[in-house]
Amino acid sequence: MKILNLFNISPENKQRLKSLDGVELINLDDLKAYDYNQIDFVYGWNQRGDELLKKLTHVKFVQSISAGVDYLPLNEFKQRHILLANTSGIHAAPISETVVAYLLAFSRGIIWSDQFKEDHLWESDKLRKSVFSLSGQRALVYGTGNIGTAIAIHLHQLGLQVSGVNLHHHIIPEFDEILPFQPTIPSNKKFDYIINTMPLTSKTYHFFDDKFFSSLSNQPMFINVGRGASVDTSALITALTHCLLKSAAIDVFEEEPLPNDSPLWQLNNVLITPHISGASADYELQAFDIFWQNLNSFINTGHVSVNKVDLVRGY
Amino acid sequence: MKILNLFNISPENKQRLKSLDGVELINLDDLKAYDYNQIDFVYGWNQRGDELLKKLTHVKFVQSISAGVDYLPLNEFKQRHILLANTSGIHAAPISETVVAYLLAFSRGIIWSDQFKEDHLWESDKLRKSVFSLSGQRALVYGTGNIGTAIAIHLHQLGLQVSGVNLHHHIIPEFDEILPFQPTIPSNKKFDYIINTMPLTSKTYHFFDDKFFSSLSNQPMFINVGRGASVDTSALITALTHCLLKSAAIDVFEEEPLPNDSPLWQLNNVLITPHISGASADYELQAFDIFWQNLNSFINTGHVSVNKVDLVRGY
Repeated sequence: MKILNLFNISPENKQRLKSLDGVELINLDDLKAYDYNQIDFVYGWNQRGDELLKKLTHVKFVQSISAGVDYLPLNEFKQRHILLANTSGIHAAPISETVVAYLLAFSRGIIWSDQFKEDHLWESDKLRKSVFSLSGQRALVYGTGNIGTAIAIHLHQLGLQVSGVNLHHHIIPEFDEILPFQPTIPSNKKFDYIINTMPLTSKTYHFFDDKFFSSLSNQPMFINVGRGASVDTSALITALTHCLLKSAAIDVFEEEPLPNDSPLWQLNNVLITPHISGASADYELQAFDIFWQNLNSFINTGHVSVNKVDLVRGY
Repeated sequence: MKILNLFNISPENKQRLKSLDGVELINLDDLKAYDYNQIDFVYGWNQRGDELLKKLTHVKFVQSISAGVDYLPLNEFKQRHILLANTSGIHAAPISETVVAYLLAFSRGIIWSDQFKEDHLWESDKLRKSVFSLSGQRALVYGTGNIGTAIAIHLHQLGLQVSGVNLHHHIIPEFDEILPFQPTIPSNKKFDYIINTMPLTSKTYHFFDDKFFSSLSNQPMFINVGRGASVDTSALITALTHCLLKSAAIDVFEEEPLPNDSPLWQLNNVLITPHISGASADYELQAFDIFWQNLNSFINTGHVSVNKVDLVRGY
């Protein structure tokens, strides 16, 4: 059985693969034309994935190394009955810490202090009036999966009230309440933080649009650690420049890298992180552990045991 | 009974004071020479406090509006048997949130992202390798009072191991262990974060000096939310420039405002906040609540009921 590796595998984990009877690991650089119809498994994905998949006539299982799989050709997977698993779960810790980092960077004056530092400015009086404690603030989290739930737990620990939104309006105990999936914020609700963690699907594409931002009445902070295309970027810019939003922290964008001429770079109440919210030092090891479980399960039973993607739902 | 007000009191709280029989509130601007020997209580303190205190021959109780009271003439308080209370406790929430903000600002790449933003730089690959989750990291907190304990609670929630140091080496259940108060880090201990919350006394003056920083073996981050003079500033700068420290986040300084020519402004691995870590929007109301309790208690019993400062110990 041959595995095509499109990601990074540590020497220790390469040894683990070698210990499996009859398993051969092939890196992309070493892939020969005669391998194409012998590849059974693909680990990771990259820009050449779509083109490669057409040639890999024999592939049965692909392990992505991301939680979102919107960038893979899901229809082709479905037609060819290829199993797909994601790495949902391992991003929950780093992403939820990143969300806490965003909230506190603004509430505790870190962003402004760092901007003043450049000019050696000691703006104590001004900042003392603007900083505040998060206790009692209200957050609304779109998406109540692993990531959204980890965020809810952290925000509760900091004394916030946390509401959630999910597609089927099902109760998740870590949230104070679950609101239905609707295109605007109910007029009787006010939130200080709007946080997106949803996967990208036809239902969530451009969900955060002009209509959504216009329904905000009390200038919340907006955070996107989900998918870039869930946000209509021009609507976000309008909301920020028209003070419908107090501030924003954005990790994922419709176009990445964020184009050099994007107005978002210029707005001083916007924190931009370059798609790093889910990264962590031991990411590669954690991703491999999921692949390892699924590979062994597939060899023994023909099924993957964890994180199988529903190809119709898209996550 | 006359109260000299050196801080801010809301209109509602001024009404509460008026409701007390025979109590008169005098603001500094309205203070007349003939009031001097009639002032019983002082609320707050400022640069003129020391000079005023000599003239206020009748004063019996001073309510400071800070946790640390090192800037008040404690010897004169002691000689004249003037009661002093601080506002210890109300800073615990904002300061502990600030410490979490500092840790996460570095661990989640916020500081670097914000520095790259100025040049519209999308440094995703570089930052993905440097960000990490706080879980499993080790922190050492100097000072295990309200503030240190609140920090320990927050850091535990983020998965850190938290050790504490206090003067009498007494157990505090919120810490994993308590280390003795010693001038260096024990050679068998390694910490990722060193956090100072100690009051300023003769024992803590320049506690963090060349000798202390030289005892660090694994480049921790250093955080000071205690008192500026607990740190020998030139030793701190040497430790940062000689890579004994990985980074620092400093809220309090030996000289405030931090002088324009301080090398600290120039170091890009140092976060400077202008003495704002303890501030919060409802700070004035919380401080007044402590004063209100102590004022009523003093009128009824001649004692203050909360936050009395030990004038010998200095906190």
